[in-house]
Amino acid sequence: MIPKPIKKFIEAFSQLPALGPRQATRLAFYLTALPKATLSELEKSLRELKELDRCERCFFLKQGGSKICEICADAKRDPLIIAIVEKETDLLSLEKIGSYRGHYFILGKLAEKGVLETAQKLRLEHLKSRIKSEDGRITELIIALNPTAIGDFTADLIKREFRDLAAKITRLSRGLPTGGEIEFADESTLGSSFEHRL
Amino acid sequence: MIPKPIKKFIEAFSQLPALGPRQATRLAFYLTALPKATLSELEKSLRELKELDRCERCFFLKQGGSKICEICADAKRDPLIIAIVEKETDLLSLEKIGSYRGHYFILGKLAEKGVLETAQKLRLEHLKSRIKSEDGRITELIIALNPTAIGDFTADLIKREFRDLAAKITRLSRGLPTGGEIEFADESTLGSSFEHRL
Repeated sequence: MIPKPIKKFIEAFSQLPALGPRQATRLAFYLTALPKATLSELEKSLRELKELDRCERCFFLKQGGSKICEICADAKRDPLIIAIVEKETDLLSLEKIGSYRGHYFILGKLAEKGVLETAQKLRLEHLKSRIKSEDGRITELIIALNPTAIGDFTADLIKREFRDLAAKITRLSRGLPTGGEIEFADESTLGSSFEHRL
Repeated sequence: MIPKPIKKFIEAFSQLPALGPRQATRLAFYLTALPKATLSELEKSLRELKELDRCERCFFLKQGGSKICEICADAKRDPLIIAIVEKETDLLSLEKIGSYRGHYFILGKLAEKGVLETAQKLRLEHLKSRIKSEDGRITELIIALNPTAIGDFTADLIKREFRDLAAKITRLSRGLPTGGEIEFADESTLGSSFEHRL
């Protein structure tokens, strides 16, 4: 009874994050009410995502044409400071602070079991050989992974592996969130906040 | 710093319901990590939505080819019972009950100010002349609009307009939801539930 194109749309789009079957269904009918030109625009923006590939240095996304991304190509940024992040959106969050002027390195989404995937191991090897061949030793390696058990586990692993390749290896600090209240902080957060008091 | 295709994707998709800028951003990066074939599938399912048009009888969506939708073409359904719904998803919800064997009529999303749009007035005129030319008078017109102020207002309007065209004009009943508790029901719901007690 549901027309086939709608069914197929729901099947395809309900696989995506932020869109369950319910949302995908509503979205499908919403889209059919839009002008066809708007639908074509959406289609085009989806199609153009396929033109992206990954920066050879940091694995962030870039448009075809150059080998490295805008950040890696930016001469005003310090290539001797590298922040390892899990995902592209973490990079964007750090960029929003506005004060970081180093480079990045995208590790890829950490699996829940905490073991690095082959692709991630290869990326880290790539980073190692890049540091070895370029500078031998960088000024700072910032491990900007989430403050979770898996983040901690991976951070320890990276610390060991890069011990000799960076003068300093740091992580993002933990503590009370701005605007938060001591009374409502969980023990682990408050513990970290106390331990690393400024 | 964000590659242009990603920016364009976020702009286009964050306009859609269920997707704010944050969700669209995450979705964009999620999509770039998928195989290109999966992206092409999504693109195709979006493109195929454009093949749909509206049933000439009830304004539900249908695939090109026939003039009327599967529901209107179904000889096992009673064309003398018509349920007026606001949106396609309301039709799907009613179909899920499994017991309704009449036809539908899609009015289109009601504006918040409660006035019918020209397109909606035209649809109602279309329904009127359809009833007049086909049967003169149908058995039942079910006004399946939401139990909201706008729904009530529109239902009253439809009741007046179709007074002579249907032997019976009904609305969905109001009352306690199954599994709900009297103690927690709002006054209006409990009031309706008492007034229309079975």
